[in-house]
Amino acid sequence: MDLSGRIESAISRAIAEGQAGAAPPKLASALDYALSPGGARIRPRICLSVALACGDGQPELADAAAVAIELIHSASLVHDDMPCFDNADLRRGKPALHKAYGEPLALLTGDSLIVAGFEVLARAAHHDPQRAIELIRILGVRTGMPYGICAGQGWESEDKIDLSAYHRAKTGALFIAATSMGAVAAGQEAGPWEELGDRIGEAFQVADDLKDALLDEAEMGKPAGQDAANSRPSAVAELGVAGAVQRFKDILSGAIASIPSCPGEAQLAQMVRVMSERLIPEPARQAAE
Amino acid sequence: MDLSGRIESAISRAIAEGQAGAAPPKLASALDYALSPGGARIRPRICLSVALACGDGQPELADAAAVAIELIHSASLVHDDMPCFDNADLRRGKPALHKAYGEPLALLTGDSLIVAGFEVLARAAHHDPQRAIELIRILGVRTGMPYGICAGQGWESEDKIDLSAYHRAKTGALFIAATSMGAVAAGQEAGPWEELGDRIGEAFQVADDLKDALLDEAEMGKPAGQDAANSRPSAVAELGVAGAVQRFKDILSGAIASIPSCPGEAQLAQMVRVMSERLIPEPARQAAE
Repeated sequence: MDLSGRIESAISRAIAEGQAGAAPPKLASALDYALSPGGARIRPRICLSVALACGDGQPELADAAAVAIELIHSASLVHDDMPCFDNADLRRGKPALHKAYGEPLALLTGDSLIVAGFEVLARAAHHDPQRAIELIRILGVRTGMPYGICAGQGWESEDKIDLSAYHRAKTGALFIAATSMGAVAAGQEAGPWEELGDRIGEAFQVADDLKDALLDEAEMGKPAGQDAANSRPSAVAELGVAGAVQRFKDILSGAIASIPSCPGEAQLAQMVRVMSERLIPEPARQAAE
Repeated sequence: MDLSGRIESAISRAIAEGQAGAAPPKLASALDYALSPGGARIRPRICLSVALACGDGQPELADAAAVAIELIHSASLVHDDMPCFDNADLRRGKPALHKAYGEPLALLTGDSLIVAGFEVLARAAHHDPQRAIELIRILGVRTGMPYGICAGQGWESEDKIDLSAYHRAKTGALFIAATSMGAVAAGQEAGPWEELGDRIGEAFQVADDLKDALLDEAEMGKPAGQDAANSRPSAVAELGVAGAVQRFKDILSGAIASIPSCPGEAQLAQMVRVMSERLIPEPARQAAE
């Protein structure tokens, strides 16, 4: 099965577990709504690609790790879109979840998806309890406090922001989870794989800044021009479009150089390159040439 | 160390883990705020009491289980108090967390505490990975969808409520987690211990109805008279005060009768009886005599 097939079928199984039996119907339906349409599934793709590069000796654990990360990511989108944060009306080209289901169910959907991320790993744990525990530990660290995406979002409530801690937690954490959990699922140590995730996270942040500056709402599937509108720090504001594209390329080279030695090293480098190039919007590529 | 000592010191350690390093200071402080003052810590007390009744062969796992449940319970209080749910101003005799820290940090505090519940079990897992995985699995089931407290809260958004599924998930789930996780931490099967948690949850619901009807805001530490004000189903509305006290006693007898055979069965029965009697407010005891 190709990567997309593995990811989508594993996500469907995880959502179905949450909808089983006597589940409250609206919340059950909201779990689906939060996970579809799928989009690029970029974090689970990275996770599985790393697992494959390391031999993918426990594919069930790799699938569980990939899904767990996507569940947490989707939870963060649902909570971030709520009125007390971004108050976003649109997500993935359709009404944000709290617009479609109301705020109470949006809050509960996010909570349920966080829990589901840990459950999917616990259910797959019989394949290798030691690895599963390590996967659950990493997922917790990269989701909660003090280093995970919750901490990253928490920085936005501070008067004085530690920018490096902020970016590493808010954008980097789930990419670090993706590379290190992919490696752990396949029997490798997490540590050597963290830099790759960290750098992909940085590149992703620059690509996001470029999209926000250059695409319109229809192309984004969510409101555009938010960085400028909210005076947020942005690589485009700092370096211009061509400068931001160059920074993106430099970060990408560093990411590829950081890949630890493994059987599928060359394919993984190629995958990171192709996936990353897709992140850069067409107008930015033209501006940089 | 007595039960309270074990519980408070384990909670302090878990919170300190979330505040380590470069944590955003307000969110770090909000984690403390959500967990204090402690109150009765009734769920972790039940969890440790069951573990002790089963021999408490792995006290670190039992402590982790007890703390994990209290972290999840505290997360649910923080989220439930928010304006889109109960819009409560008071909790445990002080301003609700969103009143003290604002809604964004309240949302993130709840999210972080849910994650911390799973992390505390992952950190203790080296004592016995198999038991830890089972504890994580149970915590997930009793927190998320379709059977956990998220599901319970989700029922409140339905036009037609499955009352039995609603009560079992909303109030019962974390009591079932408490008894079954206490047993698993001590090396026993979860299944035989579920009924005890389920019945304690029912008794707790009746006691809560009595408090809501008979105590004032100062005694409750939160607004009183909410069941009548919101036309919620309540054992007091249905049976009167004396009838509700009688139902409480019947449920309690059933709970004690359900305790599986174990070395500390008699002490556990005594503990359940004493703890439960404290739940019934004085005016209800007088009314029933």
